[in-house]
Amino acid sequence: MKDKLRVLIWNEFRHEKNNEKVKAVYPDGIHRAIGEGLGDDLAIGYATLDEEEHGLSERRLADTDVLVWWGHKAHREVSDEIVERVHKRVLAGMGLIVLHSGHFSKIFKKLMGTTCNLKWREADEKERLWVVSPGHPIAEGIGEYIELAQEEMYGESFEIPAPDELVFVSWFEGGEVFRSGCTYTRGQGKIFYFRPGHETYPTYYNEEIRKVIRNAVHWAAPTGRPAPLFGNRKPLEPLKSRQEA
Amino acid sequence: MKDKLRVLIWNEFRHEKNNEKVKAVYPDGIHRAIGEGLGDDLAIGYATLDEEEHGLSERRLADTDVLVWWGHKAHREVSDEIVERVHKRVLAGMGLIVLHSGHFSKIFKKLMGTTCNLKWREADEKERLWVVSPGHPIAEGIGEYIELAQEEMYGESFEIPAPDELVFVSWFEGGEVFRSGCTYTRGQGKIFYFRPGHETYPTYYNEEIRKVIRNAVHWAAPTGRPAPLFGNRKPLEPLKSRQEA
Amino acid sequence: MKDKLRVLIWNEFRHEKNNEKVKAVYPDGIHRAIGEGLGDDLAIGYATLDEEEHGLSERRLADTDVLVWWGHKAHREVSDEIVERVHKRVLAGMGLIVLHSGHFSKIFKKLMGTTCNLKWREADEKERLWVVSPGHPIAEGIGEYIELAQEEMYGESFEIPAPDELVFVSWFEGGEVFRSGCTYTRGQGKIFYFRPGHETYPTYYNEEIRKVIRNAVHWAAPTGRPAPLFGNRKPLEPLKSRQEA
Amino acid sequence: MKDKLRVLIWNEFRHEKNNEKVKAVYPDGIHRAIGEGLGDDLAIGYATLDEEEHGLSERRLADTDVLVWWGHKAHREVSDEIVERVHKRVLAGMGLIVLHSGHFSKIFKKLMGTTCNLKWREADEKERLWVVSPGHPIAEGIGEYIELAQEEMYGESFEIPAPDELVFVSWFEGGEVFRSGCTYTRGQGKIFYFRPGHETYPTYYNEEIRKVIRNAVHWAAPTGRPAPLFGNRKPLEPLKSRQEA
Repeated sequence: MKDKLRVLIWNEFRHEKNNEKVKAVYPDGIHRAIGEGLGDDLAIGYATLDEEEHGLSERRLADTDVLVWWGHKAHREVSDEIVERVHKRVLAGMGLIVLHSGHFSKIFKKLMGTTCNLKWREADEKERLWVVSPGHPIAEGIGEYIELAQEEMYGESFEIPAPDELVFVSWFEGGEVFRSGCTYTRGQGKIFYFRPGHETYPTYYNEEIRKVIRNAVHWAAPTGRPAPLFGNRKPLEPLKSRQEA
Repeated sequence: MKDKLRVLIWNEFRHEKNNEKVKAVYPDGIHRAIGEGLGDDLAIGYATLDEEEHGLSERRLADTDVLVWWGHKAHREVSDEIVERVHKRVLAGMGLIVLHSGHFSKIFKKLMGTTCNLKWREADEKERLWVVSPGHPIAEGIGEYIELAQEEMYGESFEIPAPDELVFVSWFEGGEVFRSGCTYTRGQGKIFYFRPGHETYPTYYNEEIRKVIRNAVHWAAPTGRPAPLFGNRKPLEPLKSRQEA
Repeated sequence: MKDKLRVLIWNEFRHEKNNEKVKAVYPDGIHRAIGEGLGDDLAIGYATLDEEEHGLSERRLADTDVLVWWGHKAHREVSDEIVERVHKRVLAGMGLIVLHSGHFSKIFKKLMGTTCNLKWREADEKERLWVVSPGHPIAEGIGEYIELAQEEMYGESFEIPAPDELVFVSWFEGGEVFRSGCTYTRGQGKIFYFRPGHETYPTYYNEEIRKVIRNAVHWAAPTGRPAPLFGNRKPLEPLKSRQEA
Repeated sequence: MKDKLRVLIWNEFRHEKNNEKVKAVYPDGIHRAIGEGLGDDLAIGYATLDEEEHGLSERRLADTDVLVWWGHKAHREVSDEIVERVHKRVLAGMGLIVLHSGHFSKIFKKLMGTTCNLKWREADEKERLWVVSPGHPIAEGIGEYIELAQEEMYGESFEIPAPDELVFVSWFEGGEVFRSGCTYTRGQGKIFYFRPGHETYPTYYNEEIRKVIRNAVHWAAPTGRPAPLFGNRKPLEPLKSRQEA
């Protein structure tokens, strides 16, 4: 039997303690709500900002296949050293699922090379996420679109590199669109950015949203190839130019 | 009459002072050899590492449409503040042409989000750069391939994001291949990485190599659109969900 | 002085003769309205379905740098032979701008390899085309978005290959989104699909829409590289394996 | 327990009957050699050109998750009706693995929209396939490169659309390079083109080549989403523009 994929769900976990409205929606934290939605065939762990090393020790990361990231107000409190560590693990093959306001996390900005800035509005408006890559494994089991009755709006321009694959595009009631599901590869690591999930809405209890995250975790699983060889290398073939010299 | 495109060629400019072999090939510096190859329809300036602010003051960059970058041994000496400044200008639309060992420059690594590591070998071997995007403006005027009798080898894996467009793939005598001409867009800025140009070979006097760089400069010209709007925005359409609440 | 780019605007030109409503909007035909918007620095010609060879003789196509295509009800009347001819010219470098209902033209389907099917609705609704590739030359001079007070709706899924570059995404009042500005390269030819332009609306008089088409024509200009070499070829290097045999 | 993935391996199966040299290498046909390499966790079937309907009846295709295609001399004998049928199934989600000389098959050309032409040479030369997408599932279990002592050469230009993902690039002894492993999505179907496999070499007995094909089959598995909805659709949101009219 194949070992279970090891998923680590990281959450800033501040709103849920400080804000009554958020606490009412996610009493055990956003990370727990995400984890409950992932299903039994995964080995799920949790880590939060205020743990030692933000719960992201070298060892913990070495034992992680896919990292899920939710952060919002405290991106700056994530230590640069830990960001460097996560970055290395992604290049070495660890999958990374960045959710919602995680677009502004240090790790996502470092991997993208851009500001990852966007437009936003909190106005309880309707979002409809249309599937635009109909055969993509991340959209498996999803209908034409996912409708969320109330969400925060994120609008273009979204300052990211053009995604390798664009899986979802959002329509917002207020007139904007957004590239809501974007895949990237960096080194051996697969990255999926998924827009929905403002802390005041029960988005992570939505069965379709959960399915997308579940699909993304499986899609982002490492392949386990050895680390690439870099640096000075001998030729694989005889160098005629040189022999003649 | 349209104003000339303003090109700034940046060079580390150390090898040419410290190494007799390099001095013999590029007595006035690699930057001058590149500049001479660009033609008369461009307004060309030069900047080097050891100038004040590396020759890259805010004002200088504001007056630059496309920046060409050659660096090798002293990447670490480029100040983080200047890298940040160049990064901002690229996102705002300035084109960036990164040459050869510039793959390891701070600015390229920051824009790519990866190590940009690769294999290398100095063995005077033959390189043949095949055009694989035959209609691309950067390949205009180039035949099936460019042949360089002697160059440094760079080999895969090249740890970069998959390029938006792959224009050249190199064949090396020693048995390796390399993605030698890669385009990217970051923010409003267009980026072209072009592999050839080791300091001990007269590569930048080669007419075809010069043509590629010239093409790339024109391709990377800014479009001059206004800066994107980010942050909190009012809806463009009435929000029915809200009105009903 | 550089020769003017030669643009040929092809129109089915039936609605404008048979339908009073369309005639009122485009009395001289959609092609003329498009052509008037392209500006003086181009050499513009026109061709329509009911001309001999649909106005697309070998010679005419050989003298065309960029072909603009508008068709709707009579796609089937375009002869396969002419489609084959246009296809060859695109692969050889001629640019192709496919507008609106041209998504179902034989030439576009042949180049895409898919059905190019989509959702549609004629309901006089608002469309807002958001720029999502902010540095792209096709978006030059365009603000954050283009707003059209009334257009036909086209909605996802749009069964096309993932575009090389996605320049515009449309928001529709009725709740849909659409990939409205898509670039492709096939052979040496550059292709741009641009969504707006239903025959009953004055879309092709809109200054921003005209600017996009103008930009696209310039972007799609051929580079003039020689035809690629195919077939059986002698080795460029000595074959050691063989010599040893 | 999940049902086994149903793979159908299609082979022209003429060389193996008419050519002693090929018969010696693949006495039971290339298809059997490929099938033997795919492993026990797949439900494997075979079909060949000279069977009724080329072994590709509606029913057979409906029961196929991934189709593997090898053809060479008799592409023209494949009936257009069957090609149409396969095309529909690919758009509906069936995976397609096109091998070697299958680049010129009707189905591949139809899906690509280009000639799929290339350079070639039969000279028993060495090929080295470098992995350039190190985290891609199709490269799982493969080292830095695959080396084949003797193969037919295929060289650029390869007239295909830029692949969605470029997994392998080949180095050839004679001086050429080739995009040897290319992924595409068309409709809901995933397509992988894989270069090696000339009929006179024992390439399909090579363990690494077999692993790539096996990986590709799994990667190309359908997701089973429902067929997309096309055509005239009612709005999902009230149309204010219209109400005001």
